[in-house]
Amino acid sequence: MAKKQKQFRPKARLPKGLRDLRADDVAARRAMLATIMQVYESYGFDPLETSAFEYADALGKFLPDADRPNEGVFSFQDDDDQWLSLRYDLTAPLARMVAENYETVPKPFRRYQTGQVWRNEKPGPGRFREFTQCDADSVGAPEMAADAELCAMVSDALEAVGIPRGDYVVRVNNRKILDGVLETIGVPAGEEGALQRMTVLRAIDKLDRLGADGVKLLLGDGRKDDSGDFTKGAGLNSDQADTVLAFVGAGDEDRSKVLDTLRGLVGTSETGLAGVAELEEIATLLDATGYGPDRILFDPAVVRGLGYYTGPVFEAELTFDVKDEKGNPIRFGSIGGGGRYDDLVSRFKGTPIPATGVSIGVDRLLAALEALGRNKTKSLTPPVVVLPLDKDRMADYQRMVFDLRNAGIRAEMYLGGAGMRAQLKYADKRGAPVAVIQGSDEFEKGEITLKDLVLGAELSKEIEDNTTWREDQPAQVSVSADGLIQAVKDMLARPHMQA
Amino acid sequence: MAKKQKQFRPKARLPKGLRDLRADDVAARRAMLATIMQVYESYGFDPLETSAFEYADALGKFLPDADRPNEGVFSFQDDDDQWLSLRYDLTAPLARMVAENYETVPKPFRRYQTGQVWRNEKPGPGRFREFTQCDADSVGAPEMAADAELCAMVSDALEAVGIPRGDYVVRVNNRKILDGVLETIGVPAGEEGALQRMTVLRAIDKLDRLGADGVKLLLGDGRKDDSGDFTKGAGLNSDQADTVLAFVGAGDEDRSKVLDTLRGLVGTSETGLAGVAELEEIATLLDATGYGPDRILFDPAVVRGLGYYTGPVFEAELTFDVKDEKGNPIRFGSIGGGGRYDDLVSRFKGTPIPATGVSIGVDRLLAALEALGRNKTKSLTPPVVVLPLDKDRMADYQRMVFDLRNAGIRAEMYLGGAGMRAQLKYADKRGAPVAVIQGSDEFEKGEITLKDLVLGAELSKEIEDNTTWREDQPAQVSVSADGLIQAVKDMLARPHMQA
Repeated sequence: MAKKQKQFRPKARLPKGLRDLRADDVAARRAMLATIMQVYESYGFDPLETSAFEYADALGKFLPDADRPNEGVFSFQDDDDQWLSLRYDLTAPLARMVAENYETVPKPFRRYQTGQVWRNEKPGPGRFREFTQCDADSVGAPEMAADAELCAMVSDALEAVGIPRGDYVVRVNNRKILDGVLETIGVPAGEEGALQRMTVLRAIDKLDRLGADGVKLLLGDGRKDDSGDFTKGAGLNSDQADTVLAFVGAGDEDRSKVLDTLRGLVGTSETGLAGVAELEEIATLLDATGYGPDRILFDPAVVRGLGYYTGPVFEAELTFDVKDEKGNPIRFGSIGGGGRYDDLVSRFKGTPIPATGVSIGVDRLLAALEALGRNKTKSLTPPVVVLPLDKDRMADYQRMVFDLRNAGIRAEMYLGGAGMRAQLKYADKRGAPVAVIQGSDEFEKGEITLKDLVLGAELSKEIEDNTTWREDQPAQVSVSADGLIQAVKDMLARPHMQA
Repeated sequence: MAKKQKQFRPKARLPKGLRDLRADDVAARRAMLATIMQVYESYGFDPLETSAFEYADALGKFLPDADRPNEGVFSFQDDDDQWLSLRYDLTAPLARMVAENYETVPKPFRRYQTGQVWRNEKPGPGRFREFTQCDADSVGAPEMAADAELCAMVSDALEAVGIPRGDYVVRVNNRKILDGVLETIGVPAGEEGALQRMTVLRAIDKLDRLGADGVKLLLGDGRKDDSGDFTKGAGLNSDQADTVLAFVGAGDEDRSKVLDTLRGLVGTSETGLAGVAELEEIATLLDATGYGPDRILFDPAVVRGLGYYTGPVFEAELTFDVKDEKGNPIRFGSIGGGGRYDDLVSRFKGTPIPATGVSIGVDRLLAALEALGRNKTKSLTPPVVVLPLDKDRMADYQRMVFDLRNAGIRAEMYLGGAGMRAQLKYADKRGAPVAVIQGSDEFEKGEITLKDLVLGAELSKEIEDNTTWREDQPAQVSVSADGLIQAVKDMLARPHMQA
């Protein structure tokens, strides 16, 4: 507070790719998250909350885009010069937490976590740099039952929040099967073929966007896109590429048929056969619990971009279209997924620790529900607003508000400095159902006026329509001051208030 | 995925001053927050969620420690080189949000927000670099009723989460009164005396720690602490300092008496008299709504460190002691507070916008409730655990789990790779009430064994105590496989399970 400086006036603006969530958004998101968390908890997952940032080396570099391993993360230095990064997902902090507390946590360690993650990427429409995930993982769980239950759980969660069966599908695949197919067509196993396998994975991942022909180019020598940019391919010959495409196209509602096709494609590859056996075990577990192909589909086209998956992978996809304002169809597509990542915790410990997990993209799912008009959430009930018309009697108005609130009615007093017109406008803007009014005339008569703002809005429309007024439920009533609470309750109980 | 490099093994560790919240912590915090938010909502505050970071210039520098204005914040550069900072409180983002959306938000804008904030400060016991606040603010609200209701609301929130009346107090003061007192004793008004006023504020803020004598030194020439470090004082003479100390000591349960004392101390200072009038209005509003001095106390010793307060300030304090493990008393002290900050939004807009708000420190309040044993939260019900003893029959076990879950019972299957001993140990570690066991013998007989793990634990203790076994409720029962659900329900309904 030294001597006065020229006033610096900052611009009030959010950085790109960030946003504010207003009341209705917050309420909708909270309700949806509560439902998902309830499903996760019913499966025996316990909540965990880790911090927003971690040591950069502990988070590792497991972002989807392996081409830019150093980008995508917000990082800063601690006062001891060590690098910290905002978490970019909830899996890396879990791996750190389990490794750090390995001796004391129950094994398997089953936790769910919901929270924000941050990615330093180019924002776009519906693409933010801060978003919310809701993850569940079992660490130290080699059993395929761990993967099968995650597929079932995502299916349960989607239905619980309001996506009807038939409007979503959980697609399941196994990384080992692709490895087996590649081994069979001559791509070297182990580290030697790692880069080629990753290029194949990335090519398959583009099936939706490029179609089979485009993918075949990327499996072969490479592909030039419309802008003239060339992407180098995986270097497979045409026969090899066709085998990969046969694998990719093997998805079917008949799980046995998928397993037969895959068994044919992996030949004698041990890795491939192990993958098929795992998928077969998942089929048995899903059949036993009644999760049919209408909910969970075996589809080898699902590879998931992340390098760290080692076995089963799954992706939850919304299959319906909605129309945007211009009538164009929007498909929401993937709203979550996951898989087995047996190496993520072990990179701290040095010994392999089998783990599997799933993540739901909360923002996308919420957007989809809202586009569908299927968001079951009621928004927050707006408050009854008391208008303080007489500044000398603030205490009286305050008492009314407290009396209403003590009677269980959400209520507030207008606290700005303006007159009646502005006060009523405020009540409208707040969506208030009822305004409580007592000017000096009414005060002298011991009366209070209640305005039914919902009916008032309807009536203004009806007047425009030249229809008649309703006599039985006047938009404005005068009540005795000591009957305030009951009168407000009566007004809130009017049928049109429940809409 | 280039060629193999020497394996880098990072250390699994949290950065200092951060922590993981385990299941019970998360559940307790969530329940407490839900209660506070319900109280805030009943007062008409709507939820808002802003992003974790903002432009550094938009957040400004309003940290408590004005001595280090550039420190205390985690900052990093965006890809366009602009500086971003993690939010250090929830007020600065609110000011940015309101300024950015001033034309469209209802005015007054009444929002609450709960979320993490981050401070780059030295961590210590119970002092973290990431913590949670729960704030409510009215922006564009010049009325004292806005301040009075916040004091009442904090009081309601504390009682709602389980702090009994008498174990907390909300202390209220007004910055203008101190300014008036200082004016009366000759400290220049306006910018000229700003530094001296701030030094006085900081001295008063140390009353708890240093006592009146220590504060008097800091009001005068300065004070040397035990380590020999000298803190320069505010430069008041002894008479001036005594007047300030008289002001600081004017707190009393009789609000009129406090107002009389303060009126005497501010003399003819317009600022001071305005402050007393504001405090008097708050007294009227609190009296009208029945919030007596047992809940809300007028206490001029409350100044709150932050430079930005401009009128009423309040601080919620827990007044009980608890004993630590060594029997030493711990006082939790302040768990929240706030006040009027008429300049925070206006620094964006250029025109003054009156605002007032309150913040509850969620972590401290939760710690206090736990120390008191008064946390009303039930922790998450642990799951029933099904033990898969026969690896060939995983699908059968999985079906049992799904059947239990569909019957509304939280349930999971042990998913690790180990045998019966480890499986039972896992169930114990999870706090499971019941273990469901079906080995091959039982399977052949069409039976399932249920183990009452709660009773089992009690019985092991009783055996050690040489007391008798209970016959009516055996710790282990054999039931027919098709009666599983009902048998588990019966076991969960045993009286000792409800404890």
